Formats: sequence, structure tokens, C-alpha cells
Amino acid sequence: MSQEYSFKHFTVQFPANHPYVAHVEINRADKMNAFFEAMWIEMSQIFQKLSEDPNVRSIVLSGAGEKAFTTGLDVKAASSGPLFSEKSDLDPARKAAFMRRHIAAFQDCITAVERCEKPVVVAMHGFALGLAIDLSTAADVRICSRDVKFAVKEVDIGIAADIGTLSRLPKVVGSFSWVKEVALTARVFEAEEALRVGFVNSVHENRQATIDAGLKIAALMASKSPVAVQGTKEILNWSRDHSVQDGLRYTGVWNSAALQTKDLSAALLSGLQKRTPTFEKL
Amino acid sequence: MSQEYSFKHFTVQFPANHPYVAHVEINRADKMNAFFEAMWIEMSQIFQKLSEDPNVRSIVLSGAGEKAFTTGLDVKAASSGPLFSEKSDLDPARKAAFMRRHIAAFQDCITAVERCEKPVVVAMHGFALGLAIDLSTAADVRICSRDVKFAVKEVDIGIAADIGTLSRLPKVVGSFSWVKEVALTARVFEAEEALRVGFVNSVHENRQATIDAGLKIAALMASKSPVAVQGTKEILNWSRDHSVQDGLRYTGVWNSAALQTKDLSAALLSGLQKRTPTFEKL
Amino acid sequence: MSQEYSFKHFTVQFPANHPYVAHVEINRADKMNAFFEAMWIEMSQIFQKLSEDPNVRSIVLSGAGEKAFTTGLDVKAASSGPLFSEKSDLDPARKAAFMRRHIAAFQDCITAVERCEKPVVVAMHGFALGLAIDLSTAADVRICSRDVKFAVKEVDIGIAADIGTLSRLPKVVGSFSWVKEVALTARVFEAEEALRVGFVNSVHENRQATIDAGLKIAALMASKSPVAVQGTKEILNWSRDHSVQDGLRYTGVWNSAALQTKDLSAALLSGLQKRTPTFEKL
Amino acid sequence: MSQEYSFKHFTVQFPANHPYVAHVEINRADKMNAFFEAMWIEMSQIFQKLSEDPNVRSIVLSGAGEKAFTTGLDVKAASSGPLFSEKSDLDPARKAAFMRRHIAAFQDCITAVERCEKPVVVAMHGFALGLAIDLSTAADVRICSRDVKFAVKEVDIGIAADIGTLSRLPKVVGSFSWVKEVALTARVFEAEEALRVGFVNSVHENRQATIDAGLKIAALMASKSPVAVQGTKEILNWSRDHSVQDGLRYTGVWNSAALQTKDLSAALLSGLQKRTPTFEKL
Amino acid sequence: MSQEYSFKHFTVQFPANHPYVAHVEINRADKMNAFFEAMWIEMSQIFQKLSEDPNVRSIVLSGAGEKAFTTGLDVKAASSGPLFSEKSDLDPARKAAFMRRHIAAFQDCITAVERCEKPVVVAMHGFALGLAIDLSTAADVRICSRDVKFAVKEVDIGIAADIGTLSRLPKVVGSFSWVKEVALTARVFEAEEALRVGFVNSVHENRQATIDAGLKIAALMASKSPVAVQGTKEILNWSRDHSVQDGLRYTGVWNSAALQTKDLSAALLSGLQKRTPTFEKL
Amino acid sequence: MSQEYSFKHFTVQFPANHPYVAHVEINRADKMNAFFEAMWIEMSQIFQKLSEDPNVRSIVLSGAGEKAFTTGLDVKAASSGPLFSEKSDLDPARKAAFMRRHIAAFQDCITAVERCEKPVVVAMHGFALGLAIDLSTAADVRICSRDVKFAVKEVDIGIAADIGTLSRLPKVVGSFSWVKEVALTARVFEAEEALRVGFVNSVHENRQATIDAGLKIAALMASKSPVAVQGTKEILNWSRDHSVQDGLRYTGVWNSAALQTKDLSAALLSGLQKRTPTFEKL
Repeated sequence: MSQEYSFKHFTVQFPANHPYVAHVEINRADKMNAFFEAMWIEMSQIFQKLSEDPNVRSIVLSGAGEKAFTTGLDVKAASSGPLFSEKSDLDPARKAAFMRRHIAAFQDCITAVERCEKPVVVAMHGFALGLAIDLSTAADVRICSRDVKFAVKEVDIGIAADIGTLSRLPKVVGSFSWVKEVALTARVFEAEEALRVGFVNSVHENRQATIDAGLKIAALMASKSPVAVQGTKEILNWSRDHSVQDGLRYTGVWNSAALQTKDLSAALLSGLQKRTPTFEKL
Repeated sequence: MSQEYSFKHFTVQFPANHPYVAHVEINRADKMNAFFEAMWIEMSQIFQKLSEDPNVRSIVLSGAGEKAFTTGLDVKAASSGPLFSEKSDLDPARKAAFMRRHIAAFQDCITAVERCEKPVVVAMHGFALGLAIDLSTAADVRICSRDVKFAVKEVDIGIAADIGTLSRLPKVVGSFSWVKEVALTARVFEAEEALRVGFVNSVHENRQATIDAGLKIAALMASKSPVAVQGTKEILNWSRDHSVQDGLRYTGVWNSAALQTKDLSAALLSGLQKRTPTFEKL
Repeated sequence: MSQEYSFKHFTVQFPANHPYVAHVEINRADKMNAFFEAMWIEMSQIFQKLSEDPNVRSIVLSGAGEKAFTTGLDVKAASSGPLFSEKSDLDPARKAAFMRRHIAAFQDCITAVERCEKPVVVAMHGFALGLAIDLSTAADVRICSRDVKFAVKEVDIGIAADIGTLSRLPKVVGSFSWVKEVALTARVFEAEEALRVGFVNSVHENRQATIDAGLKIAALMASKSPVAVQGTKEILNWSRDHSVQDGLRYTGVWNSAALQTKDLSAALLSGLQKRTPTFEKL
Repeated sequence: MSQEYSFKHFTVQFPANHPYVAHVEINRADKMNAFFEAMWIEMSQIFQKLSEDPNVRSIVLSGAGEKAFTTGLDVKAASSGPLFSEKSDLDPARKAAFMRRHIAAFQDCITAVERCEKPVVVAMHGFALGLAIDLSTAADVRICSRDVKFAVKEVDIGIAADIGTLSRLPKVVGSFSWVKEVALTARVFEAEEALRVGFVNSVHENRQATIDAGLKIAALMASKSPVAVQGTKEILNWSRDHSVQDGLRYTGVWNSAALQTKDLSAALLSGLQKRTPTFEKL
Repeated sequence: MSQEYSFKHFTVQFPANHPYVAHVEINRADKMNAFFEAMWIEMSQIFQKLSEDPNVRSIVLSGAGEKAFTTGLDVKAASSGPLFSEKSDLDPARKAAFMRRHIAAFQDCITAVERCEKPVVVAMHGFALGLAIDLSTAADVRICSRDVKFAVKEVDIGIAADIGTLSRLPKVVGSFSWVKEVALTARVFEAEEALRVGFVNSVHENRQATIDAGLKIAALMASKSPVAVQGTKEILNWSRDHSVQDGLRYTGVWNSAALQTKDLSAALLSGLQKRTPTFEKL
Repeated sequence: MSQEYSFKHFTVQFPANHPYVAHVEINRADKMNAFFEAMWIEMSQIFQKLSEDPNVRSIVLSGAGEKAFTTGLDVKAASSGPLFSEKSDLDPARKAAFMRRHIAAFQDCITAVERCEKPVVVAMHGFALGLAIDLSTAADVRICSRDVKFAVKEVDIGIAADIGTLSRLPKVVGSFSWVKEVALTARVFEAEEALRVGFVNSVHENRQATIDAGLKIAALMASKSPVAVQGTKEILNWSRDHSVQDGLRYTGVWNSAALQTKDLSAALLSGLQKRTPTFEKL
């Protein structure tokens, strides 16, 4: 499996003690895991692959090195890229068309995490700035270490965050007042505050402890029926964007096939027999 | 009134000291209030009746016995029912049609609590698993006792929860990360955690104290203009599922009739005279 | 500038030490800042003006006097107005048409705060009842003093709140259970509770400390690129009311023009040079 | 079968030469098939029954007698009913609550035709006024005889049509200008105009010819795979109310079960063998 | 009344033989009724006034002079205005902010026709280009003379139509293929084609005959209950933008007040007595 | 250019006399242009390429050979593919997951035509069955030859059409009654009927005349400002799926950048000088 999952900017591992769990790590520690275009394209490919891999049932995403989950966009790399180029002699409408395509492609890479059929637990530590927030709001469960420093950093470089934070953050955290403040001021918030507002679920001692906790949550998910777990992720995401009535109907149609799984009797029987069920691949 | 409200699996009472308040209790304590089909059909009929009963202005829902609000679906009963039957020689498409109808009918029974025009306070204690969450998210206000054990239990039996939890839980609690975790792992969460994330409003000493607190909240609601209270419930539910602009417009149309109530002057006058207003039935 | 911003029921100031920040204060302390029709019309004009004023980048809204941010609708004034008049011989359908127009016009005045292109921080103290909640949910960031007393007061006068609270409160606070309780009972909630549920972001010693904190937040926003800040406010509000997919697409179209700002290079360069950027007016 | 389908105000027949087709007829010819409350309740029960009857695959709806499909609401009967009662001493808000429930219940009876899982062809002749339009827009296919006289009659009795016409007519006919004109003037339109604007699909010589044509269309539908036909009806109705993107996704989820039917191979094989396929019941 | 309705660029008349009908005419025949900014602002004020005028129940809109309903935007006037100014030294993001405000204000003036509570019949002749289409799609009923020349002209001046045509035309005409063709090519289409696709309801001999026909339709609307007619317009517009389910619910809430009108019994009684009902003002 | 656009199952040409127009032809005449998986994947790549090619401003899509535009899915090829395989020992839930992915991928290939930023005119002749309808409803303008035979063929093979027809057809044709009939019966409809209901815009003598007419329409589009044309396509598609209010707002944001194009002055100047404008690439 290792060969298949050999990538340039990310490591993908399959911890032996956690069957069906994949561990993806951003692997550019010397640059605090800052992202440039090739990285988000690669990341999108990884999550697409994991989404369809029947040996994978849940995923942990973390960053290499002690300093940062990721400091976000590698501004230096980006400044020589299309977004910052001023040389162009295109008129503003044509530049805008170019920008739209670029942003859409970038957004799509981050949305790959949300689209991934398996749940994704993101374990953050150190600096987690800008793109870190876009990325983590596209994941399912967020946890962090005590030393984390979060910021919706984009206004500090003259940009309204456009890769997902502004669309998803109000839907993953309850206090719109808090969302507005951190997005409009770019101020840093730390672990306790993130826990209090519900941005993260739990705070851990350090990077390793956070990853371990993430693996444990992921392993728990991976021990359940994959039909049930993947259906749950999909229906929760659909429901976020639809009325309760549309949510119920979609759920009914979804489950009309899902309930015909053998996992149902497997799970029930195991429950009665007090043993761990095994489920076929999905 | 007692005769009218005589049911097999539920008790319905009208506490003398709380005018206009109905107290509905799931009455199958020996089976930890686990549900089978006849029960949710009956429950739907009760809430439909209360919805139109002019003598009722608010409702408390609780479970009988010290052990559980409800442990959810009675799996044993269900396993002899249609969902688990494998004998059928229908092809999967025909089975799916059958499932869809079954799920829709079941969902509709739970939605009866949401559709009820009077506010519903749900007072939970002990085990509150699976269907307990579906049911309580269809209610308006959730409170619990210190000993409560909640779980979105469905993935443990190989199912994506399909009777309401996945559609409503993300809309009643702010932290989507937390919702994802409890729905994807089926882990138990207790009173303090439920309070912290906003799933419940308050935690009480034990079952009786919780019910008493629920009755007190319900009594407070019942002391207000029923035109105002029922309009508030309806508009809040509509607004949950629509844009702010659509919410405002619906509110304006709704209140164009509601403001023509005599309750307005009754309430104002009582306010000035420092006495309790009385309102006509609704 | 003072002359331009001379109003009858509000003071508008531009604190010298906070460039680009406007401070609007409800100025009817002797009546606890209770609102009558001329006031909300005037307020709407002020926010429309600030929205287009290139010298303004963020706004603080507070109430004059130590007792109250505002006690809401001036019921005495209102009771001689159209809502409470019973003399009319119009049939209920015609009265309803009249009501709808009246409510829509009133709502529109409050929505002026949301529509204002610059972020609005509302600093509340003392009584903050009824309309105070409608008003503050239309603002971006809410903070309060330790002595604040909040209530969604409308059911107490026989009304379902119709000027914004019921449409916006469920979208600015995560716990729907809590929203239902306070809206259906009209009970008072105080600073700590408001902080816990995410209604406010922070609690301060007293009125002045709250205003100072509000000015500080507003000043921080005003120090950023106005292109970035105003885009962030707009996209967050759009995203609240749309699916994530629609949010992402709108963001892409918005930023296709916004990214062509000079603020981007100004911000980046200042960042590298460790100095404060200056941005052109907007 | 005849006994099961014995009703007071409707006849339900199963034409021998058209297997799986049900023919429902409004049976109050002496009153031009005008509707009173018991009739729409009965009609709702009939369509609910047909929806779940595996012996039925499509339905024709027509009116008895030569004069009218239906002249709509029996105003005389209605005027002694709740809508027209003025005696009530309820305040307008309480009356409104009563009205809302009444309208919702009435709408739900008409929506039973749309909700019916089998396609419904409505064959209209003579007078087809008011409720006739509400009813026919809830059906799937509309055809008529040369002598038909249609009118969205409601404004003539001082009412905005509230049982479905105003919500569905703009979605079943392309010209909104035409919809507005006929709804705002209540003027009569006849067969040729109805055909031109797409309200009906075809015009036939007289009542009997129209019913025969309806039966032929219904029989054609009944000869196809019921899995395919019922899925098509459902997905078309869903798509009418959702974006293309949501339509595609719902379709994919629906068909993920539906494609597992044996009808697929039955239909294909019959196609190759040039014979009529037979399908299992649904 | 004439004095109240004295305007610079429009005439507003109240034809003696058509009670409750207002006739608005664009009055710049020497420039083929081409629009500049002051005109659309004035038009918006006129429709706002008519919307609330109890003496008005329906409106006809036409253009003065034999040559044109309107040739649309007065490009010469506009080219010295903000849209075409290139002198500005604003960066493209700041220019875009300026544009957005300008477009929104312009759109809002045209939407005043849609927002007007009374139905608007637009009678078009001669050239009806660009803004003519935006304007007429915001009206309720469209009719034209035999000599009309329509075009969605905007792409010919390098613009995607942004004042309403692209948002409304697909919702007022059934054939999206036709809408795409005329919007993407700017080709002229004439009366017969407009009738065939349902853009207009009827074609008349010449300008005067068209206006007369418009007045006749408007008079018919004005003879009905204004409660019923205005409710019908509002509900049809709401339904265009919402699902059938949301349409039905909004209708029920709307009519819960509207059905309490005296017009209901007035209309019924007049019907029985075969005489013309009179209705109170609205 | 020819080399770049060399494909296996499609020809792509750039007619010399129609600058900026691309002509795509399905090139499997010996099998009546029936589709198998490699074909729709290739088609998706072609439209993605054309979408971003600055030398292309509009596209015509047709089918090679005299017999058919396309007879749709190559059932023989498909029957050895995943949809029809029965050998699998997966449980129905796992099969459904597999189906969902397959359908989504297939849909996405067809949606590539809609997503293409340049307008697509589809010129159909002969048999145009099943997938032909899915495909053509994703295009912008539909025209056909006199000999065309259309059918929404899917129910004939036991399937509810799932690649786009059921989601798009109700939005491109006004008569929902007609849509229901052809989708539920799979009956053939021909050129005149297609024209009458607005499915096609025009009917031509034969295949070649249809293609020529398509090229002429495409050439007209290609002669306009590409900023205006591409904006028009995008805004029309957005508006189809959103409320008028959301349509207007999106349009304003879009045009805030688009109006900054030089095409505006180029088009205006050319108009005054009565010559053909030239526009920069996009």
C-alpha cells in the first residue's frame, strides 16, 4: 500500500494498530507546512483516492514538525503566481475571468476533503493560520493541542478569505458574533477559546497527544459499519445546506438502499453476543 | 379531560397547579421506554390532539421509571418487523420503495412533535439513546438530569440515523464538529457536555427535579399570550429553514393577522396594572 | 464632518484616536433610549450614510445614559400609533394589509444595520430589551457590560417579535433550545449566560469599559484593508443564508474583482517591512 | 377489488382492457361535480390507497355527467361552513389560526394527488372552474375536450386561490404573463388556448373521447416498468422545486437503489426479443 | 388627483371610463423614450405611490409617441455617466464597489414595478429594446402591437443585461432555449414570435389598440375584490421563487387574514343577485 | 489547432468562415453515435478544453452520419458494464454506493456542456433518443431537422433517466404536463411538436441545413463581446436555479467586474461608426 500512497508533499500512513485508518500529514515542516499550488492539487488527489479506497474507513490529517499545522498560503510562492501578478495587460473583466477560474480550482481542491466519503479528523498544533482554517472547516472533526495559534488571517493580506472559511465557518460554529470578530480582525485565538466556541472538540497536551487522540477517534469510527458511517457523514453535510424537510426526505431515499446492508444484522448479532462485529469493505 | 387523553403507552396529565400545561410521559418503564411501532403512532396522535386543544398552551415530555427517558428503538421488536426482514424475495428496488414508505411514516410521527403548535419542553434522564435524540431535537426546549447518558446510537446497529437526528441536530447545536463526532462514533455524552455544547439548557438533580423544572418553564410559557407564543414557535421554526429575508417576510405576513388579537391590549393593560393577564383560548 | 452627522435622536462621533471609526449612540437617556418611529427612521438614514461614507471603516453602536442600551419599543408612544389602534372600521384583511406595510417598513430600518457595508460592533449595557435584541442581531459583533439585562421581551406584550429577532437569533447563536426558551418565556438573561451561549463575545466592567472595548475592536477592523473587511462582512452574511456550494461560488465572483485591489500589495509589503499599511478610501 | 374501492362521491373502476390502470371519477353530476368538504377528504383517501396498491400503475381522473369536470367549490355548501361564518366572536388572530388549519387540511387533500406515487392523467370537459385548476395542476398530465371552459375563478368570489393553483400553475405553464392574466381576471379560457400555452397536452372531440385518450396514455405508462415510472414522477416533482445540482444528486441517490431492479434486464431482454415485458408488482 | 401625479418624464392619468385604473406613460417621445437616471428614479417613485394609493387597483404602462415603447438606456447620456467613465484612478476593486452600488440602485428602481402591490399591464409598441425587456419582465402582463421590435440588446454594447432581464426572463417564458438565443445574440424578435413563446399574451393592431386592450384588461382586474387581486399578485410572485410546499404554506398564512374580508360576502351576494359588487378601498 | 483537438470519438473543427466558432461532432456514425463510457469521458475533456480556449467563443454540437444525432446509451456495451452486472456478491447497500459514484461521474461528464463558459448550440437530426435529451438539455440552444425523432427513452429500459433529463427538462420547457407525458411514456415526438412546446427554437430541412443554421447562430454569438456573452450564459444558468432577488444580486456582483471591460467602449464606438467591433480574447 505504501507505494500507491507515495506523494511528494504529504506522507500517508496506515497505523498498524488502527485498522482501516489512514493518517495524512502535510510534509513541509521546514516551511511551517505553508501551501503552494502543487500541494493543494496533490492533497486533492490524495483525498479522492482515500475516498474510494475500500481499505480506508476514516482519516486523520495533521502537519509535520513541531511549529505549525500550517501557516497557510506560502505568500512568497504565491506572489510570483497569478494572483499577485500586475504585469498583465488584460482589462479588469478579463483578469476577473482568470481569477474566477483560479479560485474555483483552488476551492475545489479544499472541498475534496469535504467530498471524501470517509470522515476526516483534523489534528492541529502550533500555527494554524489562513488556509488552515479553510482546510479544517472542510474536515469533519477538529481537535487541537494546547499550543495552537489559530487565525483567519486573510484580511491581514488585503483579502476576504475565499477558499472556504467564510462559507463554512458560520456553519460549523454557533456564535456568528465570534465568527465575525475573528474574520474581520484576523486576531489570534487559542485552544481554550476554540474549545469554548465549539470550533474544536478537545484540547490535548502537545502535537503527538493530539494526533494520538485523533487516531483514537478515527479508529472508533473505523470500527463501525462503513455503510452507517459514510451515510451519516453524507446526510449531515446535506442537512447543513437544506431545510429539515428536505433533509428528512433525502435521508429516507438514502437509507432505502443503505438499510439493505448485511451490516445491520452483523452489528445486531455482535451486540447481542458482546463481540466486535466485522464488516465487508466499502 | 382524563378520559379523552387515555392512551396505552403514554400517560397524559394536566397538573392542577400549572394551568394550560400538559404533561406527556412515555409509559413503558419495564422496557426502559423502548419504542415499537404502535408507540410512535400513538405519540403522533397525542401531539396532534394537543396541538388543537384550546385548553393546552405548552407541553412537557418525559419518560416513566428511574432508568431511562428512552433507550430508543426496541431492537428486538423491530427485528421481527419489516426493516430487518430478509425473507423477502423482492428485488432491491422494490424493497427500497417499501423502506422509503416505512421511513417516511416513522419520520412523520416524530415530526408531529415539531408540528405541534404548542411549545414542547423535553425533560430527559437516565438512558436517552438513539430515538431519544431524534425525538428531543423535534421538541423546542431540552433539559436533563445529572444522571443522563445520551448517545446518537444508530451507527452501532449499522444504520445512519434516519428519523430526524441527522437533519435536526446540526440545526439545534452550534458546533458541527461535535455533532459529527457524536454521530460518527456513537459515543456516550453526559449532562455537562450536553450543557456546554448547547444541546440542553439546564441540568437538574434527578428525574423528578428535571420534570419539575420542565413544568416550570412550560408554565411560564403558558402564562403568556397563546397568540404570541404559538406565533413565536412557528416563526422560529420557519426561520431555521429559510434565509433572513424570507424569515422577515413570513413574519410580517403572519403578524399582520396576529397583531389584531385582543391579547395585545390585555397584556399591555395588565403590565401597567401589575397584574396577571388572562387570554382567551386558542 | 460633525455638521453632516447632526441628528435629533442619535449622536454620531468620530473619536480622534480611532481613525475611520464612527461611534453612534442612541440619545434618549431620559426614556431609557426607548424607540419611537422617528428614531428608527433616523437610525436607518444614519447607517445608510455611514455605509457609503469613505471616511468610515467600522462603527460602534451604544446607548446613552447609565441605565439602558434601550428598553425597546416605547410602548406608550406606540400605543397611540397604528399598531394598537382599534378605532379603525377597516375589515381584518384591510387592517392586515396596513400592518404588513408598517412591519415591512420597520424591519427595513433595522435591516439597514445589516445592509451597512461597514462592520458594526454593538456595545450593550443595562436594560437591553425587545428591540435591543432585534437591533443587535442585525449588527456584526455583540459585546456587553457586566450589568446588562437582556430579554426577548415581545411575548410579554402579546406579540411574536417581528422586527428581526426571530429570523436572526437562531442564526447568530448555536443553541436552538436556548433561543426557543428565551423567546417563548421572555425571561431575562444576563452577561455570563449571554457569553456562554455565544450571544456576546466578551463582558466588560461597565458601560464605558464596554464602549472602549467596542472601539478597540472597531479600530482593529478599521486598520485593515477596507476592500478585505467589507468583502468579508458581505460574504459571511451571504453564506449564512445559502448552501456552502453557493457560498463558494459567490465568493469566487466577488473576489474576482476584489483581488484586483492595490491593498493586496500594500498589505503584503507592509507585512514584510513590519510597518502599518495605509489603504485608499472606499 | 370493486368492494375495496367503494366510495360515496367517487367511482373507482379498473377497465378490463387496460391492466393496472385505475379510473377515478367525480360522481356528483347533478351538482356539476361541485366539491364540499367530505368529497375532498374522500378523494385524498382514494389517492392514498391507489398510491400503495400494487395492482395500480397509473390513474385517470375525470368527472361524471356531460356538463362539467367540476365547477369547483360548492359555494352554497361552503357558505354555511367555517370559511364564511361571521357569527364568530373570536378576535381576528384567533380566527386566522382557525383558517390556517382549515386551509392546510384542504391543501393537503389536493396534494394527495401529487403525492400519489403513480402518475395521474386528468381528463377534463365542460366547466372546469376554480378547484378544477387546483386539482389538475396537482396531477401529472392534463388533457381536455373541445367544449371545456376553464377559469381560475377565485378572484370572482373575493379570494386569492389558496388550494394550490397559485403555487403550481406558474410551474406547470411557461408563460407567467398568461398565468397572471387568467389568475388576476378570472376570465374563461378554452381548449385551444389551453393547448397553445401548454396547460393541456391534447384536445379531444368530447368527454368520452377525452377519457379514452386519457386511458390510452395511462395504459402506455402502465405497460412500462413501475420502478422506472414511479421514479420518474418523483424525480420530476423534486426537480421542479430544486436546483439542477440538487436534482442530479437526488436522482443519483434514488437510482442507486432503483437500478438494482430486475425490471432492467426484463425490459432489455424483451426489447431484444421484440416482446412485451412483464414486471413484478410495486 | 392630477396635481399629485405631476411628473417630469412620465404622465399619469386616470381614465374616466375605467375606475381605479391608472395609466402611466413614458413621456420622452422625441428621444424614443430612452431612459436616463432621473427617469428610472422618477418611475420608481410613481410606482411606489401607486402601490399605496387606495384609489388605484391596476395600472397600464405604455410609451408616448408612435416610434417606440422605449429604446432602452440612453447610451449618449449614460456614456457621460459613471458606468462608462474611464478617467477614474480607483483600483478595479474600488471601481467594482462603486459599480455594485450603482447597479443595485438601478435594479431597485425597476423592481419597484414588481413590488407594486397592484397588477401592472405593460402595452408595448415600436422599438422595445434593452431596458424595455428588463422593465416589462418586472410587470405582470405583457401585450404588444403588431409593429413591435423587441431585442435583449445588451450584448450589442458589450454588457450582460444586469437590470433584471437575465434573472426574470427565464421565469416568465417557458422555452429556455429561446431565452438563451435571444439573450446571447441580441437579435430582434417580433410580435408573432413573442406571442408564440408566451412573452406576450396578445397582439394588437397598433399602439392605440394595444393601450386600449391594456386598459380593458386592467379594468377587468380593477372590477374584482382588491383584497383578492393583490393577494393573487403577491402569492404568484412568491411562488415563482419558492418550492410548491413553501408556496402553499405562505398562501395559507396570507389568506388566514385575507379571508376575513367583507369582500367575500360582497362578491358572493353580488354573484347571486347578478349585479356588480363594490368593494371598499385598499 | 487541429492537432490539439484530435480525439478518438469526436471531431472538432474550426470552420474558416466562422471565426471563433468550434464545431464538435459525435463521430460514431456506424453505431448511430451511440455512447459508451470512453465517449462521455472524452466529450467532457473536449468541452473543458473549449471552455478555456481563448480562440473559441461559441460551439455547435452535432452527430455524424445521416441516421442519428445519437441513439443514446450503447446498451450492448453498457450491458457488459457495471450497471447491468448481476454477478456481484455485494449487498444492495454496497452496490448502491458503487452505483452512486458511477452515476455522479457520468452526470459530471454531461454537465461539462453546461459548465462550458462558451454557449453551445446543439443541432439534432434523425434519432435523438435517451442520452440525446440529457445532453441537449445541458446545452444552451436546441435546433433540429425536419426528420428528427426524439424520445425520453429511459423508461423503456426500466430506468428513470438519471443523467440530467429529469432535472433539466422541466426547466427548459414550459409545459410540465408535456414533460411528464413524454418522460412517463417514452413516446416519440417530432420536430413540429418540439418546436411548439419550445424544446427547439427552429426546424430545418435536413441534417446539413440544421448544422448550417447552428453555425450561423453560433457565429452571431461569436461576433459579440465575449465578456458580455459569457456573462450572459452564466447569469442565465444561475438565475434558473435561484430566486429573482438572488439572481439580481449575483448579476450585480458579476457585472461589477465585467463592466470594467474595454469591450464596452469598443462596442459603443463601433455602433456609432457602423462597423464591426473586434474584441480581445477571453
